[in-house]
Amino acid sequence: MATPVSPIAIGIHGGCGTLDRKLQSERDWAETEAHLAQSLRAGWKILAAGGRAVEAVEAAVAVMEDSPHFNAGHGAALTEAGEHELDASIMDGATLGAGAVCTVRTIRSPIRAARAVMEKSDCVLIAGKAAEDFARRQGLAMVDNSYFTTERRKQALASLKALKARGTIALASEAERHGTVGAVALDGRGNLAAGTSTGGFNNKPPGRVGDSPIIGAGTYAKNGVCAVSCTGQGEVFIRHVAAYDIAARMIYAKQTLRQSADAVLEALGSHKIGAGLMAVDGAGRVYAPFNTLGMARGWIGPDGVAHVGTHKEILRLGAA
Amino acid sequence: MATPVSPIAIGIHGGCGTLDRKLQSERDWAETEAHLAQSLRAGWKILAAGGRAVEAVEAAVAVMEDSPHFNAGHGAALTEAGEHELDASIMDGATLGAGAVCTVRTIRSPIRAARAVMEKSDCVLIAGKAAEDFARRQGLAMVDNSYFTTERRKQALASLKALKARGTIALASEAERHGTVGAVALDGRGNLAAGTSTGGFNNKPPGRVGDSPIIGAGTYAKNGVCAVSCTGQGEVFIRHVAAYDIAARMIYAKQTLRQSADAVLEALGSHKIGAGLMAVDGAGRVYAPFNTLGMARGWIGPDGVAHVGTHKEILRLGAA
Repeated sequence: MATPVSPIAIGIHGGCGTLDRKLQSERDWAETEAHLAQSLRAGWKILAAGGRAVEAVEAAVAVMEDSPHFNAGHGAALTEAGEHELDASIMDGATLGAGAVCTVRTIRSPIRAARAVMEKSDCVLIAGKAAEDFARRQGLAMVDNSYFTTERRKQALASLKALKARGTIALASEAERHGTVGAVALDGRGNLAAGTSTGGFNNKPPGRVGDSPIIGAGTYAKNGVCAVSCTGQGEVFIRHVAAYDIAARMIYAKQTLRQSADAVLEALGSHKIGAGLMAVDGAGRVYAPFNTLGMARGWIGPDGVAHVGTHKEILRLGAA
Repeated sequence: MATPVSPIAIGIHGGCGTLDRKLQSERDWAETEAHLAQSLRAGWKILAAGGRAVEAVEAAVAVMEDSPHFNAGHGAALTEAGEHELDASIMDGATLGAGAVCTVRTIRSPIRAARAVMEKSDCVLIAGKAAEDFARRQGLAMVDNSYFTTERRKQALASLKALKARGTIALASEAERHGTVGAVALDGRGNLAAGTSTGGFNNKPPGRVGDSPIIGAGTYAKNGVCAVSCTGQGEVFIRHVAAYDIAARMIYAKQTLRQSADAVLEALGSHKIGAGLMAVDGAGRVYAPFNTLGMARGWIGPDGVAHVGTHKEILRLGAA
């Protein structure tokens, strides 16, 4: 590997729609934390070996897509029709290259498809069946739509449909509805990258596309500025161009990542929605604000110490 | 109507991929200009009667969608598969409300569907068949995919396929490939709006989504700042979050619309692509830069004088 010229860092999130601690067994929480740690390590290993930020982001997100504990890939939310439609995007801050897929049903790892769109096509965003055909041609793993289904999401869908039938949908917790996974990374060459993957929200209308596959809304990265992956009600993130707004405030208003992210989160929160994000700046400073009960998350900063958490508390796992 | 508190203005574009003047008959150019004028008047009439900027934008864009001279609606580009897949979006600068559809095949006026998504759904973006089902339920006009086909696009597709077969695709002019329509407006209450509609580009891969339905990339509006609709190779606009970047420079770096739009166009142009945009600021100043041979466009500023043009020259049509 080339001699590092930059500190390295990685941050991941598993969505800001964390359940109340009491609503899930301690065994499930422990497994959630273990999968966060596994995701972190998958990304960190690549960075520590001199790999690129986009590779680290892809690897970290793919681990969470494969885990049933997060709303992406296996474990994704169900549409009103009881099916899965997945969205993902990735951005390379070195080149402003980007790739994304939306409303895909049979690609096991949508983040890998997003990276293939970025690197192997002339497109940035490919929708639906055409994206599946593209992924198949790229040799990516394909699955039946039912591969993504878990008992928890089926129960959540049934519960949401019951609430809706009774006209009490507003009582549904953010956790039963939303969820997303994402990662941001800074590699040893100073390159930033960000990626996001999601099943959308439980009981979503078919065809609905949120912010996760939208560059500038759910995902953004630019070298020397920041890499951002967002989680929360996507429509508000799109309307606020949230991920790029964080970068724009840093570029044009000379705000720090923390000032900028706090300001954007406040603007999003003014719509009375749950919102969170994971971000890293060009110096490897990780920042992960959220306005909900919790946000599954983890990071390893330039000091090499791994942290994970699902609620306010953070577990320090020690050196990566 | 309420007493106006703001000057009114409208700007429209029919894409920056204008053909060389010699490549089309004078009769076709005259009809193109007539349709631009008709689009302008459709929007202006609403503004002058005290209507809302979003209504004016929708009406102006719908006229260009119905014209065979622009790459949107009837006259849209064809995919590699010889079909039409249309994208559109609209944004209300008063509320940051937004609506969009992508890869739709049977909605006569995608801009009307985008507005229905904004006002009659909880979504911002709906993709593919689900968007068509939504439009049908909203009572919008539905057509066969073949309604959008014109002889000119069939010839352009055949010509592009021939060039590609000979490996000389780079010789294809921007005009044979790209095209978009859009409108921006400022109403008497000081509300800004923007909308964009497109068939993408000739010989595009099925499923490809460009910047036109992406809020922040192809379309953006925020009261007191600007309304923007973009035209050019969409992938680059997405990666630069072009439409919102124009607003962000005005908000955070205190640039004028002209300074900001020029800077963004220069950044886009550095990718060696054709690019253009139509924009209006909160005071009704219209600005429409492009780096190509021409851009079909027109505007009526606060002085009430209509202008249209397809190349560098601008026709002053007189009072609207």
